[in-house]
Amino acid sequence: MPDQPTTTEDLAREAATGREDRPWEELLRLADDGRPQSLPEFLDELSTADQALALSRLDDRQRQQMLAALPAETAAEWIQSLTEAQAADVISLLQADTAAAIVHELPSDEQADVLGDLPTAQAEAILDALPREEADAVRELTSFADDVAGGLMIREFLKFSDQMTVAQVIEQLLANEAEYSDLDVWYGYVCDADERLIGVLPMRNLLFVKRSARVRDIMISNPLSVTETMPLDDLVEFFDSHAFLGVPVVDAEGILKGIVHREAVDHETVRAAESDYLKSQGIVGGEELRTMPVWLRARRRLSWLSINVLLNIGAAAVIAVFQDTLQAVIALAVFLPIISDMSGCSGNQAVAVSMRELSLGLIRPTEMLRVWWQEVSVGLINGAALGVLVALVAVLFKGNGYLGLVVGVALFVNTIIAVSIGGTVPLLLKRLGFDPAVASGPLLTTVTDMCGFFLVLGLATMMLSKLL
Amino acid sequence: MPDQPTTTEDLAREAATGREDRPWEELLRLADDGRPQSLPEFLDELSTADQALALSRLDDRQRQQMLAALPAETAAEWIQSLTEAQAADVISLLQADTAAAIVHELPSDEQADVLGDLPTAQAEAILDALPREEADAVRELTSFADDVAGGLMIREFLKFSDQMTVAQVIEQLLANEAEYSDLDVWYGYVCDADERLIGVLPMRNLLFVKRSARVRDIMISNPLSVTETMPLDDLVEFFDSHAFLGVPVVDAEGILKGIVHREAVDHETVRAAESDYLKSQGIVGGEELRTMPVWLRARRRLSWLSINVLLNIGAAAVIAVFQDTLQAVIALAVFLPIISDMSGCSGNQAVAVSMRELSLGLIRPTEMLRVWWQEVSVGLINGAALGVLVALVAVLFKGNGYLGLVVGVALFVNTIIAVSIGGTVPLLLKRLGFDPAVASGPLLTTVTDMCGFFLVLGLATMMLSKLL
Repeated sequence: MPDQPTTTEDLAREAATGREDRPWEELLRLADDGRPQSLPEFLDELSTADQALALSRLDDRQRQQMLAALPAETAAEWIQSLTEAQAADVISLLQADTAAAIVHELPSDEQADVLGDLPTAQAEAILDALPREEADAVRELTSFADDVAGGLMIREFLKFSDQMTVAQVIEQLLANEAEYSDLDVWYGYVCDADERLIGVLPMRNLLFVKRSARVRDIMISNPLSVTETMPLDDLVEFFDSHAFLGVPVVDAEGILKGIVHREAVDHETVRAAESDYLKSQGIVGGEELRTMPVWLRARRRLSWLSINVLLNIGAAAVIAVFQDTLQAVIALAVFLPIISDMSGCSGNQAVAVSMRELSLGLIRPTEMLRVWWQEVSVGLINGAALGVLVALVAVLFKGNGYLGLVVGVALFVNTIIAVSIGGTVPLLLKRLGFDPAVASGPLLTTVTDMCGFFLVLGLATMMLSKLL
Repeated sequence: MPDQPTTTEDLAREAATGREDRPWEELLRLADDGRPQSLPEFLDELSTADQALALSRLDDRQRQQMLAALPAETAAEWIQSLTEAQAADVISLLQADTAAAIVHELPSDEQADVLGDLPTAQAEAILDALPREEADAVRELTSFADDVAGGLMIREFLKFSDQMTVAQVIEQLLANEAEYSDLDVWYGYVCDADERLIGVLPMRNLLFVKRSARVRDIMISNPLSVTETMPLDDLVEFFDSHAFLGVPVVDAEGILKGIVHREAVDHETVRAAESDYLKSQGIVGGEELRTMPVWLRARRRLSWLSINVLLNIGAAAVIAVFQDTLQAVIALAVFLPIISDMSGCSGNQAVAVSMRELSLGLIRPTEMLRVWWQEVSVGLINGAALGVLVALVAVLFKGNGYLGLVVGVALFVNTIIAVSIGGTVPLLLKRLGFDPAVASGPLLTTVTDMCGFFLVLGLATMMLSKLL
């Protein structure tokens, strides 16, 4: 064991070692040693990923203790390294007063995100402990969904009057430097006496003008802005079309409410893509982290599984109808799961391409016929290839060409059905207002299973005399 | 039919209507009417999504014709609205000279991305048609993977000497304003005589100093930088920890090679998340768009399907071993696909949570035992719930309690197996250097199918006398 570290360098070295390995143990050791004052320093040494990791490995009592021991500002920085679900989980452990002190240090968009994920009573208790004006602002932000401009905007921005001179602007910037250095201040926003947005002032432009110039003469007039309800897709489109770092958000009266930064839009886009992946795999009730209570995790997963098991039982009922055929030609039972699984695979590929083309804007939800045709052409080729392969296996297995014919034709036809459904179902769901990432998979599997079982066993029943 | 539009407003109005509906038809009409000079104007009216849509709906001959008719700058803007796969596809249609003129207008990181996706011979032909110095620069960038700093950086940046005064810097900015307005110029980079990076100069800071001040006195010395080979994960971590818009990239000698912008990192992160989704659904050979040739799409999908069909046949072989049991208790055949599908669902949920926790850094690839234990607890609960449900269905279906016992116990045990494998396989694959998004699904399905079939039919064989 090395000696107790005494200098900052020692602590940093120790932190670097702890980081490799188990940062949360080092955290506990520092807290238990009665050196909570060295905690902020140690946290600072950790990467944001390791900060999140460390917090996730503490139990509830330890988290409570640790956050209460930290200055609110450091605690707020720690909280910001977490996902929203984690952050809300941690905040919910704290007394309303302690929580409010930490929430107070968060940027306004994150305040709204965290409080929006808490139970209402707890969120209200924390809001009551915040300064009145701040609480009102957060209440307004939480009234918007996370993925519209109102939910993505921050309320901290530089505001100038159009009557100011450049010298006055620079003076104001210098006087508030400490406060602004936390923001990414690249633009100033110019409002009239009624708080209506009338101009934007890129800070860089101040370099090229005389200090006596007036803001109204050098600002960009009639600036582009977005409404509070603009959805994420349109914001993505906006930032794709314009090389801006941020865009002002105005209400119906043209009053400036906040700024949506490009970065916030990019982060929400990542979240949406990750969420589509999770939903397609059956994680649908919200983000799951394995540090959440077992019962919650089990219940959320089960709500999805129980719908699927019912759909599955429905599809398998087709097999029960054909029991006599199956009993006569038991080899068919080997091929039923193969046809079910492979049709699922082919159909899921088509679902994925449709989801991708929808998100790129390359197909419209109304173009089902176009997509269907493009899928059928691929389905014909791949269905033929898979059908021949499975037919060959069947012939080798039982030496009966008719068995090969039955399973081969069934897989060929069912592949075409699977890609047709897989390609068009996301478009249909989107048109009907459902989430295609959640519902496409189960719908696809159920229909292709039913069709697959029906094809294999129906064809076999028709050709029963040749199969015996 | 409205009259031919003659003014810009008419064109804009017409464009706004065309946009609602079929922008590519309007494009073709403008080109065919012999009004190619109005094309850039019309394109400008379209959103980037509609630009991409329009180009995707033209056939190869039309694309060729359209791009050749446009000024290279407009064509380059159009190309930038496309995904990389589309962009390379379109560029590959053009003569090397025409292509080079368009590539010349792209930012350096996109030049490298597009040429990197072309066949080597074609890329070389275009490089030969570019100015020598530019071609060398692009060759250097294409030598890096898309998702490391060298592949994400751009080579256009503001460079100053540390000996310059603020007045000289502002003079240089003003003299090159047109050129710089295309870049997002928020920082200048300061190099010594050997091109080594020695400082960073936030443009905003120039506001607060005298014009006679020297760059070396007001720059941030010893600035943070990254290496050309820094992977995406580390860049994400860097921008999470630092509120910068960009970071300089230096080689082993400290020579400044380019700048990675936060935006490029965010975009690559979205791409990675979307790519994980596509891969998990079996789209693995690169991005598929339905405008690609049918044979290419079929071949790529089939390469994935053919591996799966072989794994599937292997798993189904377990059923063949137990044919006699199955023939004696044909009702079991109804439950085999249910147990296979449901285990797949449960396992995929566990895969998704592991993928998510890996990407958040909340588990390490070595922590398999920890993850296994957290999955078993959920598997016990959900396996019990699903097992009881399926057992009840079996009892209702055949009136035989032992049949219910067999399928219920099999699904209970197999759910635990499925979540154990689903939770740990992504960690194992990552440790072994494989891509967990591609390989987790097929591995999971194969093992759980085999175990599921074995459990149902093995238990049934043991209790055969009770089931008859």
